[in-house]
Amino acid sequence: MPRVVTLTTDFGTGSAYVAEMKARLLHAATPFTLVDITHDVAPHDIRAAAWLVGQACPAFPAGSLHVVVVDPGVGTSRRLVWAEIGRQQFLCPDNGLLTWGVRRQPLGAARLLPVPPAATATFHGRDVLAPAAVRLLDGADPGALGEPLDRLQVFAVPEPRETAAGIEGEVIHVDAFGNLVTNLPADLLPRLTAAGLLRVGPHAIATLVRTYGDAAPGTPVALVGSQGFIEAAVVQGRAAERLQAGVGERVVLP
Amino acid sequence: MPRVVTLTTDFGTGSAYVAEMKARLLHAATPFTLVDITHDVAPHDIRAAAWLVGQACPAFPAGSLHVVVVDPGVGTSRRLVWAEIGRQQFLCPDNGLLTWGVRRQPLGAARLLPVPPAATATFHGRDVLAPAAVRLLDGADPGALGEPLDRLQVFAVPEPRETAAGIEGEVIHVDAFGNLVTNLPADLLPRLTAAGLLRVGPHAIATLVRTYGDAAPGTPVALVGSQGFIEAAVVQGRAAERLQAGVGERVVLP
Amino acid sequence: MPRVVTLTTDFGTGSAYVAEMKARLLHAATPFTLVDITHDVAPHDIRAAAWLVGQACPAFPAGSLHVVVVDPGVGTSRRLVWAEIGRQQFLCPDNGLLTWGVRRQPLGAARLLPVPPAATATFHGRDVLAPAAVRLLDGADPGALGEPLDRLQVFAVPEPRETAAGIEGEVIHVDAFGNLVTNLPADLLPRLTAAGLLRVGPHAIATLVRTYGDAAPGTPVALVGSQGFIEAAVVQGRAAERLQAGVGERVVLP
Repeated sequence: MPRVVTLTTDFGTGSAYVAEMKARLLHAATPFTLVDITHDVAPHDIRAAAWLVGQACPAFPAGSLHVVVVDPGVGTSRRLVWAEIGRQQFLCPDNGLLTWGVRRQPLGAARLLPVPPAATATFHGRDVLAPAAVRLLDGADPGALGEPLDRLQVFAVPEPRETAAGIEGEVIHVDAFGNLVTNLPADLLPRLTAAGLLRVGPHAIATLVRTYGDAAPGTPVALVGSQGFIEAAVVQGRAAERLQAGVGERVVLP
Repeated sequence: MPRVVTLTTDFGTGSAYVAEMKARLLHAATPFTLVDITHDVAPHDIRAAAWLVGQACPAFPAGSLHVVVVDPGVGTSRRLVWAEIGRQQFLCPDNGLLTWGVRRQPLGAARLLPVPPAATATFHGRDVLAPAAVRLLDGADPGALGEPLDRLQVFAVPEPRETAAGIEGEVIHVDAFGNLVTNLPADLLPRLTAAGLLRVGPHAIATLVRTYGDAAPGTPVALVGSQGFIEAAVVQGRAAERLQAGVGERVVLP
Repeated sequence: MPRVVTLTTDFGTGSAYVAEMKARLLHAATPFTLVDITHDVAPHDIRAAAWLVGQACPAFPAGSLHVVVVDPGVGTSRRLVWAEIGRQQFLCPDNGLLTWGVRRQPLGAARLLPVPPAATATFHGRDVLAPAAVRLLDGADPGALGEPLDRLQVFAVPEPRETAAGIEGEVIHVDAFGNLVTNLPADLLPRLTAAGLLRVGPHAIATLVRTYGDAAPGTPVALVGSQGFIEAAVVQGRAAERLQAGVGERVVLP
């Protein structure tokens, strides 16, 4: 039974939606720790949520249950699932939210959640996922939740590729510091060191550092960030604004 | 004794105020689960908070304690109360915050909280409500908190009314998706279906759906939302911006 | 062993960083209550975080552990510390974050945390502080965390000073209501009462009140706020905008 339940949504903090889900979860007879990951995913942004979930969830204690609700297709034919990836459990719509999760570790098991007749058509997080979480918290076997599934919906993840210009990738996340996290994995560090250069859109970043404070304030730098990917940053500044770059911006490692 | 305590305030997340309340609450000898509902109510917006509390609180486990602090009159003659509505308990200023609560279920009991001489004049959430919550958590009878009260302050809630144009109501909440939640209750759905139309300000919405994904992206739609009211939405868009409407905008069901 | 762990960061809520720290903390074998103070400190703003921590932490139950990560120098030679101030424990970079803490109560004890070779250079909150917190939660003696330290880094705190114009101070915090909290301590109230006036930049505030609601809406007022300092506010309005003042604005008590 999960000891930890996390919540990730695009509900924002100004409505009752998050509280309505928590209210249902807290009906579990078993005590658990409830963790907010974020409720500030951009509305309907499945890709951003999938990235976040892929980064945020793997290190939780084994058996933690992650409830993820970014669900523009709520009430349509898209499916709702329970899934186990590595030692983490997930409850979410089957709309690509676990794309990054299953890219890092194979899908262990999955079940299709039936929608009870009493559920509204507009809030399955509250009416389907939260009750399923309560069943798991109270000791139900995941196999009792529904029919087995073999595969989850995934979207195409941008992959770095070798081109005439070098290894080409893109920015996949902009953090609160304005750092540009790319999809170039950390194991490209030797190549970055050899090239001495990272291109971000039209900009060439020629200062390679081990950490943000290793160059003068205001310097654009490239480094391996804590997420396991190469990042572009500006020391004590904001790379996103300085380099006028956001998610999707092309990066090249010559 | 409450197992769950929730917090709803207009304090924002940039000051120490929320933490100061949590610090006091955690002095309770009894373990409990502390839940943030929101701290992002617009400053002093009692009406928005009352709506939120009315939607967010009823489904919590019986006996949950909801501490609500939107308190422009702090330190003046406005009263502080403990109240029981349905199976939920509340601690808050008596300034209308429970208006939606008592509209849905009758007031069960209420007590007037005395302000101890050591309380500041500017932060009764920390100095009066949090200590009262700790007493309840530690097993005090609510009757010991203060003198009984028969009624709470309520403000006039906008009520749908029959006019020559049809049933007239208004937008009462705009959520993070830009959806416009009206005060037209879900049981008007047959009439909405018969009319085939919802007017929002100068706009006529003629696409009625069961859920958001049931029309093409960009389509303005009307539906019964998860809050039990008729909503106007734009599929994968923002009705608030598209229809240039906010709280108070007139809606008509012909 | 701490029963309560709080988190204060500048990570924002849009990235996985906060969740990554929580994931590690929840590996502690001992149950504890996890409290978010804020993740919305302005990026790299050590001074704002230090003020917040100084206000937010002292009232928590004895032995509470406060993990604070505003760390522009992560991975450089700046130190990481465990510290005890009053009856509170802290884990943070030694970059001034405890300046307000040690100003109010003497430093009880401190230890220098070694950085394990496996730590990244860019996320010591996750890789050094969270594991240290887990050790404390699981019963480790703080003395086992590292070598003793005598002093912490502090920055110069602006002090009120007597000038020809009066006691001169400055705004040190703007809260969610737009209230301007100054560094003039509450014990200057008799002098404020005698002067009948507080100057904020070019503005003279001549209405002294006990609480915000004690004057007509829109009136600029001066009062002793709940943080133990003199504040400038506008009744049901925003002093920051009305007086066009922010952190650092000069205030004078004639």
